[in-house]
Amino acid sequence: MFKSIEWTDNHIRILDQTYLPGKEVYVDLYTEGQIWEAIKKLRVRGAPAIGIAGAYGLYLGISDISSPTFSSFWAEVQRISDYLNSSRPTAVNLSWALERVKNTLFAHKEEPLEKLKEIALKTAITIHDEDRRMCKQIGVHGLDIIPQKAQILTHCNTGGLATSEYGTALSVITHAHQSSKDVHVWVDETRPLLQGSRLTAWELQKAEVPAHIVTDSMAGWLMQQGKVDLVIVGADRVTANGDTANKIGTYSLAVLAKAHNIPFYVALPSSTIDMNLEKGADIPIEERGAEEITQIKQQVIAPKKATVYNPAFDVTPNELVTAFITEKGVITPNYSVKFSELMS
Amino acid sequence: MFKSIEWTDNHIRILDQTYLPGKEVYVDLYTEGQIWEAIKKLRVRGAPAIGIAGAYGLYLGISDISSPTFSSFWAEVQRISDYLNSSRPTAVNLSWALERVKNTLFAHKEEPLEKLKEIALKTAITIHDEDRRMCKQIGVHGLDIIPQKAQILTHCNTGGLATSEYGTALSVITHAHQSSKDVHVWVDETRPLLQGSRLTAWELQKAEVPAHIVTDSMAGWLMQQGKVDLVIVGADRVTANGDTANKIGTYSLAVLAKAHNIPFYVALPSSTIDMNLEKGADIPIEERGAEEITQIKQQVIAPKKATVYNPAFDVTPNELVTAFITEKGVITPNYSVKFSELMS
Repeated sequence: MFKSIEWTDNHIRILDQTYLPGKEVYVDLYTEGQIWEAIKKLRVRGAPAIGIAGAYGLYLGISDISSPTFSSFWAEVQRISDYLNSSRPTAVNLSWALERVKNTLFAHKEEPLEKLKEIALKTAITIHDEDRRMCKQIGVHGLDIIPQKAQILTHCNTGGLATSEYGTALSVITHAHQSSKDVHVWVDETRPLLQGSRLTAWELQKAEVPAHIVTDSMAGWLMQQGKVDLVIVGADRVTANGDTANKIGTYSLAVLAKAHNIPFYVALPSSTIDMNLEKGADIPIEERGAEEITQIKQQVIAPKKATVYNPAFDVTPNELVTAFITEKGVITPNYSVKFSELMS
Repeated sequence: MFKSIEWTDNHIRILDQTYLPGKEVYVDLYTEGQIWEAIKKLRVRGAPAIGIAGAYGLYLGISDISSPTFSSFWAEVQRISDYLNSSRPTAVNLSWALERVKNTLFAHKEEPLEKLKEIALKTAITIHDEDRRMCKQIGVHGLDIIPQKAQILTHCNTGGLATSEYGTALSVITHAHQSSKDVHVWVDETRPLLQGSRLTAWELQKAEVPAHIVTDSMAGWLMQQGKVDLVIVGADRVTANGDTANKIGTYSLAVLAKAHNIPFYVALPSSTIDMNLEKGADIPIEERGAEEITQIKQQVIAPKKATVYNPAFDVTPNELVTAFITEKGVITPNYSVKFSELMS
């Protein structure tokens, strides 16, 4: 077994995902700067995991400050939180976790500085623990939507690596496998950064779940041949109406699934639902560097000076989502109404 | 300018596409064995180009035999033709070109051996020349379907590299550009072998056509954002009813285009239409090695022992094709009827 993120006394240790699947390299992060870099460079990635890392980052950032007043302390908290939040824009879990630490601190503004620091760490640890329980419950609830025998197509990485443990979409898959359902997984390689072939295939191999890697372009053909019973993916941010930002390619899968009458599921902890945004068009979409497409492992694969468009996420409209699988159960439309109930 | 295939006195010289875009390496092929290897390994690729290479390969194969009778000569012709045809199964142009050389030889069975060899070479050269003219005409006819201002999405490589010159889908695009239409191209990188980012982006750069490389998974998102006016691709084999085998990922694009009410065009010389096959389900689909997906330029990107599914082509049903663009003009449904007229 591996640990994506571990709190160890005075710092966090992460499994650096940029080395996978070749090497299992754990790196120690002591400062908010190191954590910002690790999130930015995708050493730690996956919406829930970057939320957890961000919460620890905020604690580490404030752990050695000595502000004389709450208001000067609070200014530091805001600055460090904004800095960490700037590492990646699309996944809401990062800002959600930072807000949660901040809200808890603010609620205890009368406490002395050392106590406030303790509270920040405790909140980060709580976020970490809760995520583990939520991911477990996502897997349990997901059993309801997986047939006894199923060919499942998934995209990107949504496993233990992307969360505290278990994962989201991958938690559903591994729980189904462990409950003796006969599942086989088509793993989209997920260009440009290959989270599918590098990470999901690696996790499924460890969990001994039967799987084949395919290129992202094969999904339609698999569906046309009757080789896909359902699609299940994770999410980086879901708005109040159920519109879903997730790894680029997800929207194409949702359209293809609909065209072939195949159910399309999104698995996520409720921390990924952003009730402050009304609809998908409001979600900021991160664009990343051209070299992610023109190079693979430093090998150049495109002409010099080639121009590239590299959005890291897309938005799937709510009407293409058959159901959301959360730690609180399986949610079917109407999402606006159900999310309001769930999140209140 | 480059030459994908060139006849030079006693052998062919090809631009080895496996080195592109990094290096322009020309290799000389003297024997049918070298040509078989070059087709198999995609040093020369693209349905029309492998037809041309195959025709020269058949001539080179028989050029040094000394059969005493036509029937012993014919047995050799059959053997070498079957061998060359075994290099790749899906594109029909290879078997079409080999059949054409064979039919011409058979029609001249009374001629002496040296004359027969001459006829084989002349036929190969004719196939090569005709392809050039057909590709030019495809570009000219294609002008009818390209608006004055157009964002065009294409897949794989269908340019001069894939043919004698000009290309098929890319001939349409470059002719539109040269006729002062304001075209911009989204170049699908086309995993696993990256014919889009390696070859199409390279050709478009040489032709000074504005273009951006995208991953295959981005097509749906581009369409959703209104950034695609039409899709145009080539073909490896089109059956009598218009079903179209082409590079894996083409079918997904066709479904996505339909879902977004975007026209989907297939450009091809009539040599790619196989009137002997009734429908797409009859087309043999080549499956290629796992290492094409688990490695890029010898860099391993997936776990050891990962299992892979790697079909090189898919089939797009005729009802998803808005029109075919051939050297004889633009063909709209009913394809069964129109193809019968065209090919008779």
